[in-house]
Amino acid sequence: MNLAAISHDATARDCFCLEPDRFVFRLRCAKGDIARVVLHHQDKYLPLSIQDTRGEVPMTVAASDSCLDYWQAELNFHLVCLRYWFQITDTAGNTVYYSNHHFSDTPFTDTDDMFDCPQNLREEERFFTPAWAENQVVYQVFPSRFASSRPVPEALWYKAPVTPWDELHGDLRGLTDHLEHLKELGVDILYMTPIFRSNSCHKYDTIDYYTIDPAFGTQQDLKNLVDKAHELGLRVILDGVFNHTAPEFFAFADIREKGADSKYLDWYFIDGFPLRAKRGEKPNFKTFSYFGGMPKLNVKNPEVTRYILDVALYWLRQCGIDGWRLDVGDEIGHSFWKQFRREIKAEFPEALIVGEVWHLAEDFLQGDEWDTVMNYPFYQSALALAAREEMTVSRFVEDLNFLKGRLHPRVIPLLWNLVDSHDTPRLLHHCGGDKRRMKLIAALQLLSPGMPMIYYGDEYAMDGGQDPDCRRGMLWAQDRQDGDMYAWYRSLLRLRREHPEILSSQARDLPEDEKGLLLRHVGGCTLVFHCKEGTVILPELAGKRDLLSGEITDGCFGPYSVAVVQDA
Amino acid sequence: MNLAAISHDATARDCFCLEPDRFVFRLRCAKGDIARVVLHHQDKYLPLSIQDTRGEVPMTVAASDSCLDYWQAELNFHLVCLRYWFQITDTAGNTVYYSNHHFSDTPFTDTDDMFDCPQNLREEERFFTPAWAENQVVYQVFPSRFASSRPVPEALWYKAPVTPWDELHGDLRGLTDHLEHLKELGVDILYMTPIFRSNSCHKYDTIDYYTIDPAFGTQQDLKNLVDKAHELGLRVILDGVFNHTAPEFFAFADIREKGADSKYLDWYFIDGFPLRAKRGEKPNFKTFSYFGGMPKLNVKNPEVTRYILDVALYWLRQCGIDGWRLDVGDEIGHSFWKQFRREIKAEFPEALIVGEVWHLAEDFLQGDEWDTVMNYPFYQSALALAAREEMTVSRFVEDLNFLKGRLHPRVIPLLWNLVDSHDTPRLLHHCGGDKRRMKLIAALQLLSPGMPMIYYGDEYAMDGGQDPDCRRGMLWAQDRQDGDMYAWYRSLLRLRREHPEILSSQARDLPEDEKGLLLRHVGGCTLVFHCKEGTVILPELAGKRDLLSGEITDGCFGPYSVAVVQDA
Repeated sequence: MNLAAISHDATARDCFCLEPDRFVFRLRCAKGDIARVVLHHQDKYLPLSIQDTRGEVPMTVAASDSCLDYWQAELNFHLVCLRYWFQITDTAGNTVYYSNHHFSDTPFTDTDDMFDCPQNLREEERFFTPAWAENQVVYQVFPSRFASSRPVPEALWYKAPVTPWDELHGDLRGLTDHLEHLKELGVDILYMTPIFRSNSCHKYDTIDYYTIDPAFGTQQDLKNLVDKAHELGLRVILDGVFNHTAPEFFAFADIREKGADSKYLDWYFIDGFPLRAKRGEKPNFKTFSYFGGMPKLNVKNPEVTRYILDVALYWLRQCGIDGWRLDVGDEIGHSFWKQFRREIKAEFPEALIVGEVWHLAEDFLQGDEWDTVMNYPFYQSALALAAREEMTVSRFVEDLNFLKGRLHPRVIPLLWNLVDSHDTPRLLHHCGGDKRRMKLIAALQLLSPGMPMIYYGDEYAMDGGQDPDCRRGMLWAQDRQDGDMYAWYRSLLRLRREHPEILSSQARDLPEDEKGLLLRHVGGCTLVFHCKEGTVILPELAGKRDLLSGEITDGCFGPYSVAVVQDA
Repeated sequence: MNLAAISHDATARDCFCLEPDRFVFRLRCAKGDIARVVLHHQDKYLPLSIQDTRGEVPMTVAASDSCLDYWQAELNFHLVCLRYWFQITDTAGNTVYYSNHHFSDTPFTDTDDMFDCPQNLREEERFFTPAWAENQVVYQVFPSRFASSRPVPEALWYKAPVTPWDELHGDLRGLTDHLEHLKELGVDILYMTPIFRSNSCHKYDTIDYYTIDPAFGTQQDLKNLVDKAHELGLRVILDGVFNHTAPEFFAFADIREKGADSKYLDWYFIDGFPLRAKRGEKPNFKTFSYFGGMPKLNVKNPEVTRYILDVALYWLRQCGIDGWRLDVGDEIGHSFWKQFRREIKAEFPEALIVGEVWHLAEDFLQGDEWDTVMNYPFYQSALALAAREEMTVSRFVEDLNFLKGRLHPRVIPLLWNLVDSHDTPRLLHHCGGDKRRMKLIAALQLLSPGMPMIYYGDEYAMDGGQDPDCRRGMLWAQDRQDGDMYAWYRSLLRLRREHPEILSSQARDLPEDEKGLLLRHVGGCTLVFHCKEGTVILPELAGKRDLLSGEITDGCFGPYSVAVVQDA
């Protein structure tokens, strides 16, 4: 038995509360090594002589990644502390007992030597997420390039490639005028990249957090946008850029003017004077990356913390937005995010808090910081599987399971599964222009649990390379739109809406690497994702209905095809 | 290679800041499986085309427990984010590369696919501990049984066995009169179990947190005690019982009087009325254990949080105490402890915060809650090794290394290594009255890094079984004192003070299980702990000086003997 691979932390990592008196326990073991795990438990404080509180529950494998099986059990109790240990039997029939970080050949009887679960402590850590957001679909808009309320010459609007300096005159009123497009497509949430005063096109360098950029409109325009979105049943998420500001932001401007005498010195990380930020050189103050144009805020300074929290609360209060997406979230400290959540949720318990991290974000997703993250690991795996074809189907499934095994189950239906964004080449570009691949990846994204994020224009097969080219003007001219792709996105979104059972976390993913095939059994359906050239024949599915096409399938699935076949 | 056992979390678990620009990285691997690990790193944001920031540093095994080797490296840098990955070569010569939670046969070059260390985030989490406390020796006193300022009949004072109801009249003035005893013994810190108003002898059920129990004295008596201790160079730690109160505490008393109409209802966890707390039955409100006499506080209620924090600050401000030991710390939530630390350390950065947990307490020791814990795992292992002789020396060393591999290095010299307490049988009792074993265990405790905690009277070989019998009157009558044991404790403490180099974390522990021998090489000495009957001969040590006895050793070490042999 691979004892070195067995681990359980008696902390929020491996034991957490779903609801009062209802708990989840997890145990990590080497993949395929273990045949059976039983969780034994008893009350810490009631001696057996008074009451025999012992019980046991079998654990099951909730997820398997490339190296580990994540065993899991749910348990109900109402007491002060639970003590527990694991009985672990490997595939060869050998049994060991594991408790309090050590192994024994015999069962544990001394409660002092068992793992400990204080009920209140775990209940206090309970992860409350906004239920409204589960499995909802996000539509990301880059406001300066999405829609304009003013006439813009076609030659300018559709310029390609596009530079950061092209002014296309997109604005909030233009966006508001096009909200019906989102509704017809079938998405649920509008997420806009930043809209506050800034000299750049992308506006990730804020000059004034309290003013809508004049090129985009006014606070009333935002209010009108949110109101209309809400009337249409859409929610609105803003982009909070709190890691850094523009150099013109009042606090940094004061430092530039007064040097070491500025009372805002501790708002940033200044290594020395005079300030230096020449292109191609490291600035002598901390910045986002090494861009002198984005000085990094010291959010640990209580004055800065207060300032930023007031900004975040202001837009929730004034315009009724539904949450914040948090730029460069992983370069801002945990204590700030804990306070951010406390204050936001105290007044707006239903607001959604979404962090930007490109890596596994488990430390931000313990229940006291964010609700969810932009799921870049999904982006990496989906493209490696189906755009570049350099990953096996098994590995793709393992990557999904890695997240499922490590993250809180409440987070899984909230993960912002993206396949492109304003920071990456567009999906079609990743697919080398191959729309079959693009459709397959869109289906992997839109037929999976989580909050898929559609980058504006993907529904019309919009093209564009790495930033800035991925930020072209939205394809509003009908002759530029790919109607077939639009129909594909609409049918995926309709199916997702009409058959929420396919988004269950109980799905069983069966990869067949040689065929490039992923079969997902869920909600009375078999989802077929064929991730290769050629045709695969699945006779067992012939004669059954494909919910996606509405047709009876003949069991033949062509290159990069997708089907959702009803089992009955 | 055992890939399933390899783990690294790019969080505070496995990467932390020692000082600005100085960081520690850890990697867990199966014990003995890996021959060489290299940590490769580069700047996240500077492209290699502008500057080649790549570097590498070999890792070393900092600790080995029963299953895992904890590889470690320190690294200096000053940048926004570091990206890094591991090159891992096993004992058979096979190499894999590990990054961002997956393995590769080739080195990593894409920074997006590397582990991520945002410098500011890790620096903000820096663990600040009170340097004054490192390796200091604690002396635990149970005030009602330690010393009285009034004459007490010998027959009462030395009653054995003792019950919880025996009133021995110990008090603070008596304790103050005996502080010279602590000084002469050679300890550094006085820790008293609770002293606030309570109807019990142990006072773990507080009626009034703002009043010294009248049987113990007055606030002025405490002030005098602390002042005299400070004059003698001793520090004073109080016991904070914040998990629960007495039923007579004003808030619970109000609930008992007014029932569901009490405005203090949310200060506790009440399941229903009328309140029920009959002996032998589960109370219908949460308590410590199931003692109706200790109703559990709801410290998550902000009113309760405020109340308790004010109490903790009050005694620091009024009497100049040096810290708090926190009773039942692990049944109180993390958010409370985070706020506790923030407020205490803001005003008293040098105050020591010590939690009571009987298990591995890694989740409370991340830098934002406590400074250290009562190290009950040390108690368990030391007794299993040398009192009950049911543990091998190797296992003992592995248990110490388990803590060393998992806890922040700043915590190791602060661990309250205990071998008994008011909650356990006395050390001599554990040893079945065998003073040779007791001396050995005292040496294991007092010659190791950490903050050894001596339970009052152990220095005179005081006896006593499980609580309440471990709480007898202190042996002040000279004819009851074991002078030999006292001399042993004094010599261990003097050696510890005069040769702090033996407390280095760089010690190499070499167990020899068959001989029952632990050889520790540290600070130019070989420490010999012989944990068995019989004699062991170590010719290489013959002719060298034993710092403990002051004699030249002949290389023969008798049953349960200890020596500190100078290498030179």
